[in-house]
Amino acid sequence: MKEILSFKIDNYPFLAIFVAMAKNEATAENAQLKDIIAHAKEYGFVYPSSEIYDGLQAVYDYGAYGVELKNNLKRLWWETMTRLNDNIVGIDASIFMHPTTWKASGHVDSFNDPMIDNKDSKKRYRADVLIEDKAAAYENAGEKERAQDLLNAMVRLLEAEDLAGVRDLIINEEIKCPISGTSNWTDVRQFNLMFSTQVGSVAEDASTIYLRPETAQGIFVNFLNVQKTARMKVPFGIAQIGKAFRNEIVARQFIFRMREFEQMEMQFFVRPGSELDWYKEWSETRMKWHKALGIPEEKLRRHDHEKLAHYANAAMDIEYQFPFGFKEVEGIHSRTDFDLKSHQEFSKKKQQYFDPEINKNYIPFVIETSIGADRLFLMTLCNAFVDEEVEGKQRTYLKFHPAIAPVKAAILPLTKKDGLPEKGKEIFDALKYDFNIIYEDSGSIGKRYTRQDLIGTPYCIAVDHQTLEDNTVTIRHRDTTEQERVAIADLHGRLAEACSFRRVFERMG
Amino acid sequence: MKEILSFKIDNYPFLAIFVAMAKNEATAENAQLKDIIAHAKEYGFVYPSSEIYDGLQAVYDYGAYGVELKNNLKRLWWETMTRLNDNIVGIDASIFMHPTTWKASGHVDSFNDPMIDNKDSKKRYRADVLIEDKAAAYENAGEKERAQDLLNAMVRLLEAEDLAGVRDLIINEEIKCPISGTSNWTDVRQFNLMFSTQVGSVAEDASTIYLRPETAQGIFVNFLNVQKTARMKVPFGIAQIGKAFRNEIVARQFIFRMREFEQMEMQFFVRPGSELDWYKEWSETRMKWHKALGIPEEKLRRHDHEKLAHYANAAMDIEYQFPFGFKEVEGIHSRTDFDLKSHQEFSKKKQQYFDPEINKNYIPFVIETSIGADRLFLMTLCNAFVDEEVEGKQRTYLKFHPAIAPVKAAILPLTKKDGLPEKGKEIFDALKYDFNIIYEDSGSIGKRYTRQDLIGTPYCIAVDHQTLEDNTVTIRHRDTTEQERVAIADLHGRLAEACSFRRVFERMG
Repeated sequence: MKEILSFKIDNYPFLAIFVAMAKNEATAENAQLKDIIAHAKEYGFVYPSSEIYDGLQAVYDYGAYGVELKNNLKRLWWETMTRLNDNIVGIDASIFMHPTTWKASGHVDSFNDPMIDNKDSKKRYRADVLIEDKAAAYENAGEKERAQDLLNAMVRLLEAEDLAGVRDLIINEEIKCPISGTSNWTDVRQFNLMFSTQVGSVAEDASTIYLRPETAQGIFVNFLNVQKTARMKVPFGIAQIGKAFRNEIVARQFIFRMREFEQMEMQFFVRPGSELDWYKEWSETRMKWHKALGIPEEKLRRHDHEKLAHYANAAMDIEYQFPFGFKEVEGIHSRTDFDLKSHQEFSKKKQQYFDPEINKNYIPFVIETSIGADRLFLMTLCNAFVDEEVEGKQRTYLKFHPAIAPVKAAILPLTKKDGLPEKGKEIFDALKYDFNIIYEDSGSIGKRYTRQDLIGTPYCIAVDHQTLEDNTVTIRHRDTTEQERVAIADLHGRLAEACSFRRVFERMG
Repeated sequence: MKEILSFKIDNYPFLAIFVAMAKNEATAENAQLKDIIAHAKEYGFVYPSSEIYDGLQAVYDYGAYGVELKNNLKRLWWETMTRLNDNIVGIDASIFMHPTTWKASGHVDSFNDPMIDNKDSKKRYRADVLIEDKAAAYENAGEKERAQDLLNAMVRLLEAEDLAGVRDLIINEEIKCPISGTSNWTDVRQFNLMFSTQVGSVAEDASTIYLRPETAQGIFVNFLNVQKTARMKVPFGIAQIGKAFRNEIVARQFIFRMREFEQMEMQFFVRPGSELDWYKEWSETRMKWHKALGIPEEKLRRHDHEKLAHYANAAMDIEYQFPFGFKEVEGIHSRTDFDLKSHQEFSKKKQQYFDPEINKNYIPFVIETSIGADRLFLMTLCNAFVDEEVEGKQRTYLKFHPAIAPVKAAILPLTKKDGLPEKGKEIFDALKYDFNIIYEDSGSIGKRYTRQDLIGTPYCIAVDHQTLEDNTVTIRHRDTTEQERVAIADLHGRLAEACSFRRVFERMG
């Protein structure tokens, strides 16, 4: 259990940033995040869930353009995994799983946060966050060493599962409830982050099941099913996209940390002893992918874990510089044989692979690449958001890579008469089966360009009187606002070329 | 409430078929379903969830080929909705919603099944199913009128919410528990089918939320958000694909009725008074879609609802002839303004649209098309499954339309030497970015063809010695097993043509 706690501790530097942010809400970085959130709401990317009922905390819905962007990102990841690699196949396991899965994975016993209540305000807090907060205060006051000592003391206590000691630390440090201002604290208790529900109606058969807190276990329990039915040979991988749920206490930063979120995970099964080579390979491959997507090198950072989870012998994050600081978008973990071994123990079913090349049975080791679809979405949105002054005028646009842009092109007849709408619809109908495009014929052309900029459409195709004469149109490019004359007959090829995933794949080298 | 009960009653004829089936498991139809289930497991389409822990009832996982098939079906539906119709956009709302949503929709109060316990066996049953069962027994014994009278009596009692009366009916009909054989019954009580969980850790803030039992409400609560941000004008539609959850008592028939399932719903908002025209239009359009997918006309049936749900003024199902009989795959419902009106009442926020053409504010009426992704998958699998004797030999294959087949082509070098594998890999690499394909170079070519037949790959591309000379390959067609010689240079075009969704769209007329 000691090790699982150290796994949670990986989160602490990260939380410290939030704590610092909470105190300093007026920074320029936060202002930028605020703009992005407002833009996402206003232009159909992300809405608070059930907004007419004033929302549900840390849960969001994707709107008309948001869902297209998210689907493109999911499909790009899926094809990167399953098409670029002929030894990776997909799976779609259910959210509900047999509850023993979560005993075997360690989540039932150890997927906890330490909580403490203030008896006067009746408010509940994460004990570790209170202490982190205090350490941040020391650090802000220039007492760096004192801050570090406090954090070390906390880590030691949590690792020893000494919850009474954690409470003593809070009392000794004179940490007060921000609401009541008192130190009248309850005991520290563990709070499990899994959502549970009851399945089955027959009273004696009803049982507690969990909403999966990670998609990985759906891959592990199916390891042999997939290996046999898709006839895979080690090394091979299984990829999955799906929802996961965590009853987060500190759920904030827009869609960065939600209670309901979507993971894209790939578990790569390798021969024991070769795992660190594969870990290196996947760390590099995944970093290349983010760059191929158009994320600038200086906005990406590799963070190697010093403290490792109990199941890992190497781990790193790919971090992106969000408006609120460098944060994890993807994690690559060398998970050893922990999961398969544990499922073998709990299920009493051998989780072994016979390797014909070395004539040996073994439990494979696993390299995991795990990326949050919502975080990838947020990174893509932050990276695309441009709000600049051009010739004294403010211009806002979303510079998505055409392969992932929600709308590829807008067909815009210059006026509503002279047969231009008919010509425009003809072009629209010829392209609509293969590309997600928009047709719009009302409003000034300038306003319509602006509108497309705001949702990140890379190409505006204007239909004018010349079109009727020579079957050419004007393509206006989003990022440069430059225009060029193109034959209608070339539009399909131009769009297909620019919007193909192949362009992204090729940039991975 | 009366009306909501009649909504449940729509299910009864359907359940009667299950009851009949349960008594008659050895029919040829069931044998075929059994074969399909076994095939799905053996060849990587569908596995029981958490199978190493002996599964979780009525929950399934999709394997390597299953997930590709399901994704293709989902994408085909999505593009049919959002690309063929420039007035339909998508959304992706969360599974968790504000709990008031389900008060407004009627699910908290009325999404119930009537349950009864036998005191001796301690087993719980659906009271209506017990009575249905008895009626089926009368019918089997030739007492058709008596069966009908019993069903009518039950419907009257359920509509009147007379649960004591339902119990009396069970007692008077001398219905016995199949386990204990006694009539020692408890009262009849209502059991809600929604799964609930607790969100939030702070004791006083924790609240009960539900796993959505349908995706439709995620569209209704976002009606104005989408209308405004995507600038839609009535008539327009919002499409969504997502998971829903129901704690079904009678969850069976493989993936036909699951506790966790995926819906594909489109809500089409129209001017009041025009709804029945749109209902007619969508009923016909959706039927065409199923035919375009390759489902034979005689296997599809339209079933108009006689009893309507409280919110509907017209409703029909598209039924497919599964091995276990004609069953609903998709429902088209004219839902009136029930949902938006109810959300307006509960949220105190106007859910109105201003129609500039008639200069009027109104709550739009709604036509819903609702299809189960898992049912569509099962229909597709059942329809594709061919097990035939050809020249004294049994041949099994899955005749999927190439546009939805999980694997489009297999590249098969005839032998493992003479440079054939290198040539095969060259072809594989040139196609892999754009098509989901397989490369395989071991085993006899006959066995490899068979293997591809079993997972429904439409094209096997054999690389032989002639290939090295003239850059041609053999394409072997799955359904006919006929072979033809094709230039490598033509492969991409041939596959693109055959596997394009456009082929399906065009068949819709």
